[in-house]
Order: sequence, then C-alpha cells, then structure tokens
Amino acid sequence: MIKKAKNNSPVNKLIEQRWSNRAYSPKEVEDEKLNSILEAARWAPSAFNEQPWRFIVGKKGDSNYDKILSTLVEWNQKWAGNAGVLILNITKNNFSRNNKPNATNEYDLGQAVAFMSLETVNQGLYGHQMTGFDAKKAAEIFNISDEYTVVSVIAIGYYGNPEELPEDMLDSEKAERIRKNIDSLLLN
Amino acid sequence: MIKKAKNNSPVNKLIEQRWSNRAYSPKEVEDEKLNSILEAARWAPSAFNEQPWRFIVGKKGDSNYDKILSTLVEWNQKWAGNAGVLILNITKNNFSRNNKPNATNEYDLGQAVAFMSLETVNQGLYGHQMTGFDAKKAAEIFNISDEYTVVSVIAIGYYGNPEELPEDMLDSEKAERIRKNIDSLLLN
Repeated sequence: MIKKAKNNSPVNKLIEQRWSNRAYSPKEVEDEKLNSILEAARWAPSAFNEQPWRFIVGKKGDSNYDKILSTLVEWNQKWAGNAGVLILNITKNNFSRNNKPNATNEYDLGQAVAFMSLETVNQGLYGHQMTGFDAKKAAEIFNISDEYTVVSVIAIGYYGNPEELPEDMLDSEKAERIRKNIDSLLLN
Repeated sequence: MIKKAKNNSPVNKLIEQRWSNRAYSPKEVEDEKLNSILEAARWAPSAFNEQPWRFIVGKKGDSNYDKILSTLVEWNQKWAGNAGVLILNITKNNFSRNNKPNATNEYDLGQAVAFMSLETVNQGLYGHQMTGFDAKKAAEIFNISDEYTVVSVIAIGYYGNPEELPEDMLDSEKAERIRKNIDSLLLN
C-alpha cells in the first residue's frame, strides 16, 4: 500500500515511500533481501567509526523470532507476528578501543536502523520500528550482557491485507501521515 | 569525489555513495537543496511520532554558522569551516504530550540526521557528522534550555579540492572505507 509523505520540498523516493504500516503478509522474506537490509546498516556513519550497532535477527518460524515476538507489548504482538522478520536492535555502550562510554551509541544505532529502514523500502518491503516491548526481558532471554543496551525492535516484511486488521489499527493504517512544520523544528 | 562503499550485498545508491569527507568547497548551498535536506529529517520515524529532533542551521556568512563553527574542536574547525552549511543537531528530552522522559530521543535524532545525510547525497552534496565539539558551549551560545540535549553537528556542502587538506587529513580522505563484517554485528 502506497502512503507517500506529503512533503513540501522534494526528497528521495525511499524517504517519501517509507511509512510504519501494521498490515503484514506472513510471506517469507528472502535471505538476499534481508542481507541487503543488514548491509545497509553496516554503512551507517558512527562516532570514531565504532559501529556500536548489534542485531539479533529472527525469521518467522525460528526461535529468535518467537523470542523477540514474546517481548512485544500485546498491541504490537497483534500485528507484528505476521511480519516475516523481527530484528532486535542493540547498541554497545563503551568504545571498543578504550572502554570509555560512547555518548552517541544510541544515536548511531538510530542511524543504522534508519539506513535499514530505507533499504527495506528499496527491497520492496515494509518496516515498522517499535519501542513497545520489554527490553529487560529481551536482554534476559538472549543473555545480552550489560555492555549493551537493547533499544528497539523492527518488523520487516511484505505488505498484507489491511482489512484483516482490528478496526482501531485499520484507522491508523489509513490515516494521513503527519509531521511538524519545518519552522517548529528550527530552534534559532 | 566518489568513494563507494565496498558492500557485499546490493544496497541503494544513496547509502553506497555517502561517506564522511573533509574536502569542502566554500560554494554556497542553495536554499532549495537545504530545504530538501531538512524536509528529509521531517519524515523520519520516531516513538509515538514525537519528532524530538530540533536543528539550528547556519549558512556560511551568517552568525549561526560562525557560532556553530566556534564550538568545534580545532581539528574539525580546520576542514568544516569550508562547508557551506553547518547544522547543530538537538533533541527534546521529554515527550510533549505528557512531559515524561523519551528514552529514544537520541536514537530518533540519529534517524532524522541519517535521513538528512542521505538526502544530502541525493542533492549532489556531501555531509560529515561530528561529535568533536563543545555541546555545553553550544547550548550556552544559543541559549538552549535543559529541555533539550545537543548531540552532534553536521557539515554539508559541495566537494572541494582534497589536495588542499593537511597531509594527515588527505590520508584519511583517500583511505578505503572500512566496516565490521556482518557476522560480528549479529549477537545471536
């Protein structure tokens, strides 16, 4: 389903076409496409090229997928369980070179997942990030040490049938995408 | 200067072509292009669509530009002062709807700046993010309240003449782009 951004200035098609849907088809995401999506994350910029981003990738039917799904809040489980892929997005807290705190480790993870989300569009797929999940539970289930912070989950897959969504989700699926005006984003 | 990512799987051209250069031409960045770059940030995803990202935009010759430049560490001042645009990247700490802390405000800022950086490539321009600056000084100069966190600066502009860079910068300008292998990014 196309839900183009109502942008005021021209932007590239990947940004224009990306939106956070909830109607997913359980169709398998091909490994080739998933590899391109992860490759995109690799090439994000990061402070001192630390590349603090780490991922746990689940494909529908495997145990990573079921574990990630189990950490989502009920509302997100309802729709995300149809997506072919669920990825847990994690970031390393300290720099590897000197073990000092990396102040932009979450910021840089955000960049890597943003790159993933645009490559997702490039692959003809849809992505939807969530913070509505139990990060502590995820760290426990996957035995993730406190060297890392678990930040978000992204669902990736083929577009499904929106008419199968519960009514409240269908409303937001059809709603226009809204954003603040540029002026309200400029502090000076 | 083209310095394509050495990617192992195909990714879109914007990601493939983005890299953090230091040779900038002082040529003015057209307002149209700058508007598209800021527009790209607008359409990033964020938790509860909070859009916590805020920007202070400086164009070469205006006072915002000079102020942002003055906060950079000496090493960054050497090259970034040629770029046509300097943007201070800021994020709002609490959700506007309930004033509770937004745990992913830096992560979401990272996504917005990542979108900007790819639109920069789309506009035929170059971008380079920095954390090497005095964020506290920036907050003071621009009178930014503690409702916000100042996170990074991005230089944006036309490509310059790399041979005019100091020797140590020229080396890294010509160096191959390196990234960790995918396998080392997967925790499970």
